[in-house]
Amino acid sequence: MPYEFKVVRRVEFSDTDMAGIMHYSNFFRFMETAEHSFFRSLGFSIVDRRIEQPVGWPRVHAKCDFKQPLFFEDEVEVQLLVSEKRSKSLSYVFRLRKLNASPVVEVARGSLTVVCVTHHAGGKMSACNIPKNIADQIEVAPAPLLG
Amino acid sequence: MPYEFKVVRRVEFSDTDMAGIMHYSNFFRFMETAEHSFFRSLGFSIVDRRIEQPVGWPRVHAKCDFKQPLFFEDEVEVQLLVSEKRSKSLSYVFRLRKLNASPVVEVARGSLTVVCVTHHAGGKMSACNIPKNIADQIEVAPAPLLG
Amino acid sequence: MPYEFKVVRRVEFSDTDMAGIMHYSNFFRFMETAEHSFFRSLGFSIVDRRIEQPVGWPRVHAKCDFKQPLFFEDEVEVQLLVSEKRSKSLSYVFRLRKLNASPVVEVARGSLTVVCVTHHAGGKMSACNIPKNIADQIEVAPAPLLG
Amino acid sequence: MPYEFKVVRRVEFSDTDMAGIMHYSNFFRFMETAEHSFFRSLGFSIVDRRIEQPVGWPRVHAKCDFKQPLFFEDEVEVQLLVSEKRSKSLSYVFRLRKLNASPVVEVARGSLTVVCVTHHAGGKMSACNIPKNIADQIEVAPAPLLG
Repeated sequence: MPYEFKVVRRVEFSDTDMAGIMHYSNFFRFMETAEHSFFRSLGFSIVDRRIEQPVGWPRVHAKCDFKQPLFFEDEVEVQLLVSEKRSKSLSYVFRLRKLNASPVVEVARGSLTVVCVTHHAGGKMSACNIPKNIADQIEVAPAPLLG
Repeated sequence: MPYEFKVVRRVEFSDTDMAGIMHYSNFFRFMETAEHSFFRSLGFSIVDRRIEQPVGWPRVHAKCDFKQPLFFEDEVEVQLLVSEKRSKSLSYVFRLRKLNASPVVEVARGSLTVVCVTHHAGGKMSACNIPKNIADQIEVAPAPLLG
Repeated sequence: MPYEFKVVRRVEFSDTDMAGIMHYSNFFRFMETAEHSFFRSLGFSIVDRRIEQPVGWPRVHAKCDFKQPLFFEDEVEVQLLVSEKRSKSLSYVFRLRKLNASPVVEVARGSLTVVCVTHHAGGKMSACNIPKNIADQIEVAPAPLLG
Repeated sequence: MPYEFKVVRRVEFSDTDMAGIMHYSNFFRFMETAEHSFFRSLGFSIVDRRIEQPVGWPRVHAKCDFKQPLFFEDEVEVQLLVSEKRSKSLSYVFRLRKLNASPVVEVARGSLTVVCVTHHAGGKMSACNIPKNIADQIEVAPAPLLG
């Protein structure tokens, strides 16, 4: 499905902090892992050096609601759903579920908006259209899934 | 001022990613640094072992809008503003400004809501009132500042 | 084999730095992942709350020789080998190999010495004997493997 | 002194792990911060885009002996000493001291060897001579200091 992707990750020791739970900044790393795996699943890399004019995907918006803490060795399913597709940007919704809970429980819900850019000399970036071969493969998830 | 605090940080090499800019997850670490420094400025530690019933401050909501990238060695002012004070939670707004730009420019704006909790055996947490000596020292910033 | 374990990890975007390669501190996180997976493979957790007197495993020595850089999305096999077993400490050797290279190439070699400790009030730790049920399951790798 | 530099850092919440102490991989980040500040103190940046042929400094060897744990909010002095200067590489010794201890105590000692490289197309790097203007400003510390 070109609007959904799931990865499973285990919480590592270095993901935790002294409160004994996964540090909140790492939820954003987990979300990004799902995004990059989604791209790989479509046959691309988020960092594709094969194409003529390489593009980048800086984040312009990121959000997360934390419902339950994650602990060391917890198995987390990160579900990505495409929530919006524009000519120059993509938005995703993420649902993180703890698989080693019975029943499986949603521990966090996040979102991310990324913009497609080209890089110029001196580190400048400017927004550009998402390459057609990428855009053609990505769909917006049905509304009920985005709930 | 018990509703505002500023810290300055330099972007480190390990804060950057292969896109040559600060990884977006690290903006959340920078915001947290301002929060913890704010507590120290009030005479507390976010992890206070001196008090009888230690409390924790897990995050329930985090958000960031990224306006401009940050590069290695950029000097960043992180301004914390208290945007809401409830009996069991605090909300902050953060403005990140790049000081080594002329003029100084706002590169990101974020927010964070944290809940005051007590820890129980087995890793469980439950929301509790913010200790009075802490709550008494914290004010909500005037609306125009939060704009 | 109670003296060897292998895990495979993919280099993530957030593992890289502005030089375009995996940041050197993350090799130590990869090594630790293999160590903790090794424990799980023996039926334990490095953080075992089920046992009466929980022990910790702080690091006293860590080393790594970096031979080749790792890039985003590289697949890395982390091989752990037990190099020494003492009453209160364990030493490991790690070989990191890049699997998506032809031929597969060793990119780094590291080592780690950890001490078994019990925790006391106030954050103090003191070395203690490795619990017998753990120690009994761990062997030192044959010398030729440690080469 | 062109063979020594000191920086002071505070251990942040996100530097800690569930054992309640600074995660061992972060000692290597602290060491690197001192290295990069040392370069700035000489008037250079470890990432100098002003020079005609930019060089990089990948790590080939890193080591750390951990003597005492570091806790949240500890103030750490990271002392860098140049231990070896070759035509294409530099070696450093690092001493980390906890300043908020009485007396101040050495908590870790590390070392790092970095190689000066130029970057080629496709991500390849090759060792090169350290630019003369940099090399001229760096001295090896007197042997007693390196003890």
